[in-house]
Amino acid sequence: MNYYPASILKLIKNISRLPGIGEKTAERLAMHILKAPRIEAEQLANSILELKDKVRLCSKCFALSDSDLCNICNDPARDTELLCVVEQPADMVSVEKSGAFPGRYHILSGVLSPMNGVGPNDIRIRELISRVKESNIKEVVLATSTNVEGEATAAYIAQLLEKYPVKVTRIASGVPMGGDLKYVDQVTLKIAMETRHVV
Amino acid sequence: MNYYPASILKLIKNISRLPGIGEKTAERLAMHILKAPRIEAEQLANSILELKDKVRLCSKCFALSDSDLCNICNDPARDTELLCVVEQPADMVSVEKSGAFPGRYHILSGVLSPMNGVGPNDIRIRELISRVKESNIKEVVLATSTNVEGEATAAYIAQLLEKYPVKVTRIASGVPMGGDLKYVDQVTLKIAMETRHVV
Repeated sequence: MNYYPASILKLIKNISRLPGIGEKTAERLAMHILKAPRIEAEQLANSILELKDKVRLCSKCFALSDSDLCNICNDPARDTELLCVVEQPADMVSVEKSGAFPGRYHILSGVLSPMNGVGPNDIRIRELISRVKESNIKEVVLATSTNVEGEATAAYIAQLLEKYPVKVTRIASGVPMGGDLKYVDQVTLKIAMETRHVV
Repeated sequence: MNYYPASILKLIKNISRLPGIGEKTAERLAMHILKAPRIEAEQLANSILELKDKVRLCSKCFALSDSDLCNICNDPARDTELLCVVEQPADMVSVEKSGAFPGRYHILSGVLSPMNGVGPNDIRIRELISRVKESNIKEVVLATSTNVEGEATAAYIAQLLEKYPVKVTRIASGVPMGGDLKYVDQVTLKIAMETRHVV
């Protein structure tokens, strides 16, 4: 590989560490950066460093944030009586993209998983209970995943919240929109059948 | 998009400017960088900046280099009597990867293209002639592309070199190895037939 100078090789190596980027793509990207205007390369490098410096967790909901409170906790237009509980920041992004939720979030930063040694004190359940106690939340929507661990976490939280005057709901399970019945798994179809509704 | 803090959005925007990287991939890469160890992100950012600071052209062959002379011009093991003329640094890399050329290179940094206003003075032909005049080069291999412009450039250089005591050769054209005859274009097949050799 001595046909590339060391600084190009180093960049190729560092780029190819990113997920889903092979050596060929890394080579192509490095060549693009070499040819691109200096300002563009600097913006890219600086935004990587800035990300590491600035991003932290919102002190209220534990979403990714640049400041003490995240954009959503800071937004006066959001419904403060509605709280959506998700596992990870990426799940919050998915719910936000759906545009179907006008309230605020609580990110657990994990899911109950006794097999992996993750108990109630390892995720942000205590902080969730405090928020429910201290603010005027009327409904908590449990939007953890629909796998075993997500369901167990939702059930656990629902039980804890029983003694508070708050409505606890769970996102619906069923056949995905645009889904073809013959490819839908049996458990999903069973749930969809059991929770059928009048049209 | 206010579900991401500004510094993440900025990195996503800068990554998605790279060729072949869409917004989804940029989002995935930004999330990876966010989770990756700080040192890894710093190495990536610094190698981008270092690339822009360090890489220049070799003063002899015009290949990409970290220093005044590139690795190949500096390598005493390379045959100084053999010179391969290519259009771009990437072409040099291709020839190097083939492992079939033990000599040194001359990168034209372009190709004659009257349609685009590129004449003999716009690419490094003058420097090539100087190298042939001043050093003990015995053979110049013309490895420009086999398209119209590459062929014209090779023919032009061959003509200029006629008055010097140097052997001028051109890389062979023909059916690519592993090629299926029914998919090979007519011009290539015609050349391959005309330059057939005894086995």
